[in-house]
Amino acid sequence: MDERVREHAAVLVDWSARVEPGDDVVVRVGPDAHELAVAVAETLGERGANLLATYASGEVTSAYLRAHDGEFEPDPDYQLALYEQADVVLSLGGERNASALADVSSETRQAYDIARTGVREARLDTRWVSTVHPTRSLAQRAGMAYEQYKAFAYDAILRDWEALAEEMAQLKTILDEGSQVRLVTPDTDLTMRIDDRTAVNSAASVAYDSHNLPSGEVFTTPYATEGSVTFDVPMTIRGEPVRDVRLEFEDGEVVDAEAAQGQAVIESILETDAGARRLGELGIGMNRGIDQYTNTILFDEKMAETVHLALGRAYDATLPDGEPGVDSAVHVDLLADVSTDARLEVDGTVVQRDGRFRWEAGFDS
Amino acid sequence: MDERVREHAAVLVDWSARVEPGDDVVVRVGPDAHELAVAVAETLGERGANLLATYASGEVTSAYLRAHDGEFEPDPDYQLALYEQADVVLSLGGERNASALADVSSETRQAYDIARTGVREARLDTRWVSTVHPTRSLAQRAGMAYEQYKAFAYDAILRDWEALAEEMAQLKTILDEGSQVRLVTPDTDLTMRIDDRTAVNSAASVAYDSHNLPSGEVFTTPYATEGSVTFDVPMTIRGEPVRDVRLEFEDGEVVDAEAAQGQAVIESILETDAGARRLGELGIGMNRGIDQYTNTILFDEKMAETVHLALGRAYDATLPDGEPGVDSAVHVDLLADVSTDARLEVDGTVVQRDGRFRWEAGFDS
Repeated sequence: MDERVREHAAVLVDWSARVEPGDDVVVRVGPDAHELAVAVAETLGERGANLLATYASGEVTSAYLRAHDGEFEPDPDYQLALYEQADVVLSLGGERNASALADVSSETRQAYDIARTGVREARLDTRWVSTVHPTRSLAQRAGMAYEQYKAFAYDAILRDWEALAEEMAQLKTILDEGSQVRLVTPDTDLTMRIDDRTAVNSAASVAYDSHNLPSGEVFTTPYATEGSVTFDVPMTIRGEPVRDVRLEFEDGEVVDAEAAQGQAVIESILETDAGARRLGELGIGMNRGIDQYTNTILFDEKMAETVHLALGRAYDATLPDGEPGVDSAVHVDLLADVSTDARLEVDGTVVQRDGRFRWEAGFDS
Repeated sequence: MDERVREHAAVLVDWSARVEPGDDVVVRVGPDAHELAVAVAETLGERGANLLATYASGEVTSAYLRAHDGEFEPDPDYQLALYEQADVVLSLGGERNASALADVSSETRQAYDIARTGVREARLDTRWVSTVHPTRSLAQRAGMAYEQYKAFAYDAILRDWEALAEEMAQLKTILDEGSQVRLVTPDTDLTMRIDDRTAVNSAASVAYDSHNLPSGEVFTTPYATEGSVTFDVPMTIRGEPVRDVRLEFEDGEVVDAEAAQGQAVIESILETDAGARRLGELGIGMNRGIDQYTNTILFDEKMAETVHLALGRAYDATLPDGEPGVDSAVHVDLLADVSTDARLEVDGTVVQRDGRFRWEAGFDS
């Protein structure tokens, strides 16, 4: 076995999920994540945790959903019992075809999601972590050869997470103490309020309220957004290529949207509900292991020298008690490259310029 | 998808497990049984049953067991809860390497089995059925090309089970009413008592107390065995080839054992415990879809024109209430070809001669 697979398993079990002896662990295994599942099983055995592996296959799910009449029984007891009693849930994504669910209608998916609300909440109530095994399918989506993609993925995953968490803590402190953020590039000038909001130091560990491996971003929920922003990182959203989205904000809401490519997708997102016109997230990518866009949001939104904003749903952890935040059926991330001709200010002070933070070598105040 | 995979799924779900709308179904998926899992998911969706898929991989289990210190926690709550609340458990065997567990010591396996006694009992308390997806690994074990093996396996699985169950019922009645069975071939003359025993019509359905697909045998537990028997079907037992085993019985116990090949394996089985020297099963294969030995007991013991006897543990269902039967840590099947120069008598009347039952065309009384 490639030693990097074992290292991935160790980071996942120890740093991310903080597995202890006797923990009841569910491992969700994608069809092409077998090798990582073997390494995770070995690590869980060494730690003296319990193991139950489930099979997470888009093709199996699609076949089931398409054949069903759509009247799904809400939260079957045996599924609820499994997740209610589990301590840890590790999801090892790995499809042979990342589009395996493309033949299921969104109505059916939504009906099933609603019927599994309790099961999902029970799962999110554990020390859950989602990661992916670098597969040929993901390599293809990134437009990379397989070995090249593995090198990329392990660079992103096998970080010195403790050191990165410490670095990210500096930005979290600045955001927690700040009132206003301003992002400026040649085609962006956007201001957002962040008073009373709490930033999340997303350091790929449940100990930091962070449930993705890799992670490496600091995020919060802005409000009262004013100005315009252009997202110049190309993305695929709902299967459609999207380029150079330009949004205009007034009083926290999108009042105009244009895109060089994919405008219809952006418009359909904005029309979902009232929350879809507002920002649910301001995220600042800080993972320097991720140096290119690979068309997988788990990696893309953590890329160093990028900033992302999400239309739609906000994460409660960032909000003061009682603040409703942004309620929406969507949460769509859009990315801007801030490596050149860009600055991020908090309360008028430059925190990041041309991709360098003020505590980094090469920062030009 | 090969239409036979869909037919396999339909037989499994409808005939074997008798799945009803709303049933809570666990599907255990072997790494190479993906295609059958997709077909089973589709069938469960059509029937309106609930689905949770687990991942049954020998390599994952081996990695976990070898890394663990061996002090396994007994019956973790979350595993117990899952199986206690499930209605149906469908095991879809399919390894890429049938020897995946060869690197785990028998002590470790046994310790784990003991620590999962409650989980196993909960699983056996559902409407469980075990089948296999025809894989390249099984084809290799059978010494067959892949397409050839698939034709063989589906011949065995896609029977007219209702018709076979009716035919087998005739033999069950004869055995239930009979007192003594005698098996005679040129190198076998064995008598066994079966008074008060109840034969099982193993028709590949939980409705017949039968939990294997394929099945197709009638079996009971004999006692007071006398005489000698030669097993001329070659087998692999505990990884060792075994040929022409000859056993001598007196008063129900093996008093002499010889084998042309594999004698050490047979002796080690007989030395396991007191029950290992007695017969726990007399089985009569009646599945005419199985016409050759393929080194997989799930198929071999159901082969038409064979009789098998098992050393060791008996199945309680065959015994009168309060009868202890045969208690042993082993249950090892040995097969005899009865297609030529052979007769099976019950109370002095020939029931099968040269592979033909007395109700079949070509039977020569």
